Amino acid sequence: MRFTSEQRLDDGVVEREFTLGEIPGTLWTPESTAPVPLVLMAHNNGLPKAEPRLVARARYTAARGYAVASIDAAGCGDRPRSAAEEQARADLGRAMRAGEPVDEIFESFIGPLVEKAVPDWRTTLDALLELPGIDGPVGYSGGWAALGIRLAVTEPRIAAAGFFAGGYVPRAQREEAGRVTVPLLFLLQWDDEGNPRQRALDLFDAFGSKEKTLHANPGGHIGTPWFELEDGCRFLDRHLK
Amino acid sequence: MRFTSEQRLDDGVVEREFTLGEIPGTLWTPESTAPVPLVLMAHNNGLPKAEPRLVARARYTAARGYAVASIDAAGCGDRPRSAAEEQARADLGRAMRAGEPVDEIFESFIGPLVEKAVPDWRTTLDALLELPGIDGPVGYSGGWAALGIRLAVTEPRIAAAGFFAGGYVPRAQREEAGRVTVPLLFLLQWDDEGNPRQRALDLFDAFGSKEKTLHANPGGHIGTPWFELEDGCRFLDRHLK
Repeated sequence: MRFTSEQRLDDGVVEREFTLGEIPGTLWTPESTAPVPLVLMAHNNGLPKAEPRLVARARYTAARGYAVASIDAAGCGDRPRSAAEEQARADLGRAMRAGEPVDEIFESFIGPLVEKAVPDWRTTLDALLELPGIDGPVGYSGGWAALGIRLAVTEPRIAAAGFFAGGYVPRAQREEAGRVTVPLLFLLQWDDEGNPRQRALDLFDAFGSKEKTLHANPGGHIGTPWFELEDGCRFLDRHLK
Repeated sequence: MRFTSEQRLDDGVVEREFTLGEIPGTLWTPESTAPVPLVLMAHNNGLPKAEPRLVARARYTAARGYAVASIDAAGCGDRPRSAAEEQARADLGRAMRAGEPVDEIFESFIGPLVEKAVPDWRTTLDALLELPGIDGPVGYSGGWAALGIRLAVTEPRIAAAGFFAGGYVPRAQREEAGRVTVPLLFLLQWDDEGNPRQRALDLFDAFGSKEKTLHANPGGHIGTPWFELEDGCRFLDRHLK
């Protein structure tokens, strides 16, 4: 893991860019050197780690006493895309403009995107836990529920997860949701145009976790109220500190 | 309003029993004399104000810096019941034992119970706001969603409300839910035997409040996790302090 830049932010958070092989990442940590738990923060369906809402969540969470990491996993953010991925995204745009059903197109590129992203996240997790000042347990907090489900099922070091019920969750992850058993905070925007409410409620119902909490608020995809960010940190505090 | 007993509890809360005409009530306040907001706390469908879970919620909330009041409104708790109410309760027991549908029986006594309870709560609110050390705005926090809806619609002094989606909500309150416009925290037990989940979700959907948040947790009617009590106080803090 090679750090390529470091800046001290006004909220007492240190933001460092890193590369790990082909994986570009960002690590936000509190200035204090006491060991802190790690939170993996991924953005929905492969948006870049530099997306402003993700950066704002990451900085807030780091200021609350966490090491927060985000990466552009294979096929995500600015990473090169396969011809198939480019094709699927083109098909998606065309289908949406034509008002055609898009589930199968989503399935065709988000399914593989999740599969390709997981190894990069696990590689990053290995490297981050080698760093001084980062201490288990590990949390996942992300817009990308599908990746979070896959990670929670395959990665025993993940002890708690916060998911945002936005964006398309592939069939494979809907089917393995019952195998997620870590404490869960599931955030739903009640009027999220692109995210059928009933499907999100069914997903919440399917999780195997004994402790799982649904927070639903009115409004569209990006209308999540600020206090949910605070509640999300309090959820992590309960399980990682 | 006549105080009939006072005791200092170990959590720094003062618990006072009072009577207001025929209305018996309890008031929990922090020992500090600085003015605090008032929270009206009612129990589901007329259970007594002395019910241990209500008392525990009230003491916790008072220790967080609120004056908390609960009463046995007309027909509730230990107050005398009309022959019609006794009959309805008897019918309900028989129907439940026989596994018959109970909605209409619930309707027949909870509907009137709400109507009868509201004036007692408003009379109590008037008297409480005369007391030194109690300061608006006023919150409602209660198991009794139906009463809370009626109060929120009829009582402009109520500035925020926390409802528990348990127990039967009469048709009249389901129909006026759209007229509730104060910030709302709506608590749902996902597996509440006596409380159809879809009906609770429909009620949440129907509230007119621009700010309304649903918190759902697995488990039955009395399985609400402890952290929801803390979240409930933080919700009140946002709107009453």
